[in-house]
Amino acid sequence: MDPETNGLHQCDAAVSLAFSILGKRWNGMIIDALGGGPTTFTGLSRTVTGISDAVLADRLAELAEAQLVTRTVDPGPPVAVTYALTPGGEKLLPVLGQLGAWASANLVADTGS
Amino acid sequence: MDPETNGLHQCDAAVSLAFSILGKRWNGMIIDALGGGPTTFTGLSRTVTGISDAVLADRLAELAEAQLVTRTVDPGPPVAVTYALTPGGEKLLPVLGQLGAWASANLVADTGS
Repeated sequence: MDPETNGLHQCDAAVSLAFSILGKRWNGMIIDALGGGPTTFTGLSRTVTGISDAVLADRLAELAEAQLVTRTVDPGPPVAVTYALTPGGEKLLPVLGQLGAWASANLVADTGS
Repeated sequence: MDPETNGLHQCDAAVSLAFSILGKRWNGMIIDALGGGPTTFTGLSRTVTGISDAVLADRLAELAEAQLVTRTVDPGPPVAVTYALTPGGEKLLPVLGQLGAWASANLVADTGS
């Protein structure tokens, strides 16, 4: 054990892994939005207020690679693409709920000043 | 209620507030590191592996403004500056623990490929 860090690194490894995904803007919001059920790109774009389509597409690809989100194509016609949480993504939802409760109790919303 | 979003916005507001802080790289890691107890800038710089001093200073100022971290100056000599969690910051620690447990179980660490 590195005496300079008093064993903090072990704890940090798991939290660091979590923030390799969640410490990127929008990823937590996208997973939270998909907690409402499978939806389309347009549905997500409306729910995750403020995200651009280019960034949303980028984040969805990243979340799919991390196996937290699935992308299902119905060849149609018309072609329909649906995004949904994997079981691993769904398991994050209760933790996001706790993060939200913590934020409501301990953070002051930025009023845009 | 906006029928297009099925009431998702209410839930989103609190989670969005949480990620206004935690969706910025390093902030969650810094709070987690301060969970080990009050420490100095140098102590944080060593514990939060990979962060630059300029970014660490910037994030600490932001976390102080959000009232999650305190900065205490002992005029000395020598001058000593200590960073610590506020009660609001401490309340995030158990949620970070759950995030870490979720990540360990559901995310694959990037091996740097």
